[in-house]
Amino acid sequence: MGRERLYLFDTTLRDGNQTPGIDFSLEDKITVARMLDDFGIDYVEGGYPGANPTDTAFFAEPRTRRACFTAFGMTKRVGVSVSNDPGLAGLLQASGDAVCFVAKSWDYHVAVALNCTNEENLEAIRASVAATVAAGKEAMVDCEHFFDGYKANPQYAIACAKAAYEAGARWVVLCDTNGGTQPDEIRSILTSVIDAGVPGDAIGMHAHNDTGQAVANTLAAVDAGARQIQGTLNGIGERCGNADLVTLIPTLMLKPAYATRFETGIDAASLEGLTQLSHAFDEILNRSPSTQAPYVGASAFATKAGIHASALLKDPKTYEHVDPETVGNFRRVMVSDQGGKSNFVDALRRRGITVGKDDPRLDRLIARVKEREATGYAYEGADASFELLARRMLGAVPEFFEVDAFRVMVERRHDANGDLKSISEAVVKLTLDGRRIMSVAEGQGPVNALDRALRKDLGKYQHEIDDLELVEYKVRILNGGTEAVTRVLIESMDGEGNRWWTVGVSDNIIDASFSALMDSIVFKLMKNREQAGSLAAAQ
Amino acid sequence: MGRERLYLFDTTLRDGNQTPGIDFSLEDKITVARMLDDFGIDYVEGGYPGANPTDTAFFAEPRTRRACFTAFGMTKRVGVSVSNDPGLAGLLQASGDAVCFVAKSWDYHVAVALNCTNEENLEAIRASVAATVAAGKEAMVDCEHFFDGYKANPQYAIACAKAAYEAGARWVVLCDTNGGTQPDEIRSILTSVIDAGVPGDAIGMHAHNDTGQAVANTLAAVDAGARQIQGTLNGIGERCGNADLVTLIPTLMLKPAYATRFETGIDAASLEGLTQLSHAFDEILNRSPSTQAPYVGASAFATKAGIHASALLKDPKTYEHVDPETVGNFRRVMVSDQGGKSNFVDALRRRGITVGKDDPRLDRLIARVKEREATGYAYEGADASFELLARRMLGAVPEFFEVDAFRVMVERRHDANGDLKSISEAVVKLTLDGRRIMSVAEGQGPVNALDRALRKDLGKYQHEIDDLELVEYKVRILNGGTEAVTRVLIESMDGEGNRWWTVGVSDNIIDASFSALMDSIVFKLMKNREQAGSLAAAQ
Repeated sequence: MGRERLYLFDTTLRDGNQTPGIDFSLEDKITVARMLDDFGIDYVEGGYPGANPTDTAFFAEPRTRRACFTAFGMTKRVGVSVSNDPGLAGLLQASGDAVCFVAKSWDYHVAVALNCTNEENLEAIRASVAATVAAGKEAMVDCEHFFDGYKANPQYAIACAKAAYEAGARWVVLCDTNGGTQPDEIRSILTSVIDAGVPGDAIGMHAHNDTGQAVANTLAAVDAGARQIQGTLNGIGERCGNADLVTLIPTLMLKPAYATRFETGIDAASLEGLTQLSHAFDEILNRSPSTQAPYVGASAFATKAGIHASALLKDPKTYEHVDPETVGNFRRVMVSDQGGKSNFVDALRRRGITVGKDDPRLDRLIARVKEREATGYAYEGADASFELLARRMLGAVPEFFEVDAFRVMVERRHDANGDLKSISEAVVKLTLDGRRIMSVAEGQGPVNALDRALRKDLGKYQHEIDDLELVEYKVRILNGGTEAVTRVLIESMDGEGNRWWTVGVSDNIIDASFSALMDSIVFKLMKNREQAGSLAAAQ
Repeated sequence: MGRERLYLFDTTLRDGNQTPGIDFSLEDKITVARMLDDFGIDYVEGGYPGANPTDTAFFAEPRTRRACFTAFGMTKRVGVSVSNDPGLAGLLQASGDAVCFVAKSWDYHVAVALNCTNEENLEAIRASVAATVAAGKEAMVDCEHFFDGYKANPQYAIACAKAAYEAGARWVVLCDTNGGTQPDEIRSILTSVIDAGVPGDAIGMHAHNDTGQAVANTLAAVDAGARQIQGTLNGIGERCGNADLVTLIPTLMLKPAYATRFETGIDAASLEGLTQLSHAFDEILNRSPSTQAPYVGASAFATKAGIHASALLKDPKTYEHVDPETVGNFRRVMVSDQGGKSNFVDALRRRGITVGKDDPRLDRLIARVKEREATGYAYEGADASFELLARRMLGAVPEFFEVDAFRVMVERRHDANGDLKSISEAVVKLTLDGRRIMSVAEGQGPVNALDRALRKDLGKYQHEIDDLELVEYKVRILNGGTEAVTRVLIESMDGEGNRWWTVGVSDNIIDASFSALMDSIVFKLMKNREQAGSLAAAQ
């Protein structure tokens, strides 16, 4: 028996953009669409072309390779024909493989919000779907307030769903717009819709988390027959958020009740990238991942010292509902130094550094890392800084050069034309082989100027860093107010496409940036020597 | 027909203390117990007296007035009698009205973790319960791994539950210890337990959130007959947390499917304190409340979408699944790129600015906000900057003073002792009433120095900003790499406790910070005048 196909529809870039505090830039949207596409999501809803400049620019060209790139928009206006509705025309002309229309399905809202008759609304649904199909695109209809609408007037709610389906919509999506519906209600109302003639494999579910049950409501819909699931990365979305795809996907793929019946577009190898996907998305949002998130949280497979920990060590499987590695996460037992030690030994081994468990330098390294993390360092996200620290404490990293002093200045004043202008300038003074080198550079801001001055002249090492490029710069203020500590993370890249992250922490953002920039350069010089060394050894 | 009583059991202080990163002090425990007691929770599980000094001290005296104060502990050891088990004796001697025993109910764990026979485990359950009842306390048994145990050996799992019940336990609590069970499984297994002779009104449910369904699993158990619910404040707990009582309580009290059938120990007036309870608990944990939390989150009743906002304003009830005031929360309609005209009109009205929908200045304001948000501004998080922009474009904000130039410098060099030292210094030159004022200040970093210099001498306005304090500073890099744009958000506070957020955006972090700092000062001066004006008008 083959398994039935479940389709995953991601609305991170559309409903997710309704999250208070979240506002995707065009670059963010391009990055997220690529991540979703690579992961194996079936539909990527990108926004509402025509509604704002970002979304219009995003739909100027195709943004997915494999996934169905979907535009969101309103059905045609009542009182005008399809060909005379510029909004609808814009949707059909924009790039994208599909259009998802939002349509009222609660008669009360038809009257109050649309000011039209029930029949006019049905006609708008039919005409919009037909025009989309005629334009060679897949059509979908989000039936807004479907469940509340059904409770008020079941005949009309179903009439909307049927109008969409019969006009040729590939999917009729039932939306729990206000998010207050309970799983049992979802199940029974969805069953009525199927009984009325809209088949389950044309039904999608769009759930919100207002009673903490978006995941359960989505699974209840699948149980009742829905075959498309809408949700977002990490459950962002309007109010309390949408159904969290990061939670739903592993449940569907790993829990026998679903895994034996369904398949998705995601394979087991992709699923191992789930934790990484979730954390990378939080990076884009510049926020810390939730430690308690199901499957992917740092605590999801963590056990604190106590009655569970010792039993867990005897037989992990009976204390974990799934194997953490299937979702790219790992077990954390915070029980003893021994556990911590093997973690470190393993982390070093993966970087080619061999160290014995009894080596006293290992204890010193662990103590230093713990001490630094307590002050705000985050080595988890700064591999290169961690490796540099470890090699410095365990072996010997050459003192390539020393920065004796630097000065950064930002000046804003009126220029000759009377316009306000800012100039950022940095001076760096360093010693290399006993020789003093002084460099000065301007930049877009103080950190950019410092970066340029620092890499302007490294004497005999200069040719080694000519291809070094700063590709990402992140700042996080760790504790607000007057005692703020700033953490800077920098991603660098060289001409061969190698990328590495470094970290700096200080109560002064310039000092923190300087540490991270220095780590990046020294890491690159060290790696060059390491490679040369192993090449020499091989000859 | 009377409604059935549902009992609420809080394990914040016991299972919640297993949360990685959470470790309650004695004072914390005393405070939280009092909060829960006042709120109307039936059972407060405080910890494990005898297991650690904090819990032992906490159980030295009664800590609740109304709620049943419950100790957690292990059943008596196999091979010793009740009277010879010091752990059990300690539990019975400690303060507290009830003891909740944790007992294995999965035969595999009986063998592997306890190293005893199945019958010895049943006997330990019976003897522990009987001793507790004999000591005049209420007895409860947490059947650990009940659902996984049931799947492996249903007869034995049920035998454990029955042993507890028949020995006199008031409650037999079925625990989904690993948190991976799905709602349908909870429902059907719980039904089997009831069929086997343990009545529903003696059954409790203890759910974990490992598949994001702790709330749904708990409600499924209630549907199947369980009458005690275990959970924690804000869903803290081991791994992904426990069922969140803050989400469950309003669902049980406000959703007709439950409210018509059940009553709890909490009344409608207490429920209005729910948001406050949740936020006060986060204060104790020293963390920011989750904005997306169901019912109590800052975003739970917030709307950003233009198409929703206009309808929401017409009739809030049809866009909110419950009335926010019933849980002590309130409605927020936010301004942003997404918002339509009615959003803006409403946002302005709430700030005391009246403007007609047809006023051309409104269109210009909306255009300006959209344009600025496209370049990185985020007005929804910066109320004061929004109001300032609006008042500038709609009315007149006085030009209090003008900053002609500023200079910020960070210098790092070796001091007299040879130690590396950084100094941040800022100079600000401004014109006020035709007079030039120059100020210089040092700070912890460049932004701190600039803030100090800017507020050092504002001439005749200085006394108005003496009590102004910068309480929060946030930085976000909007698009990485070389074209990075920086957004700075600043929260300010005055001596009367008023707080406001301002925003600045630039490719230079110092310029962005300067804009936000300026907005903060001008906003304060403007507000002072507005107040003075309305006072004058009232006289």
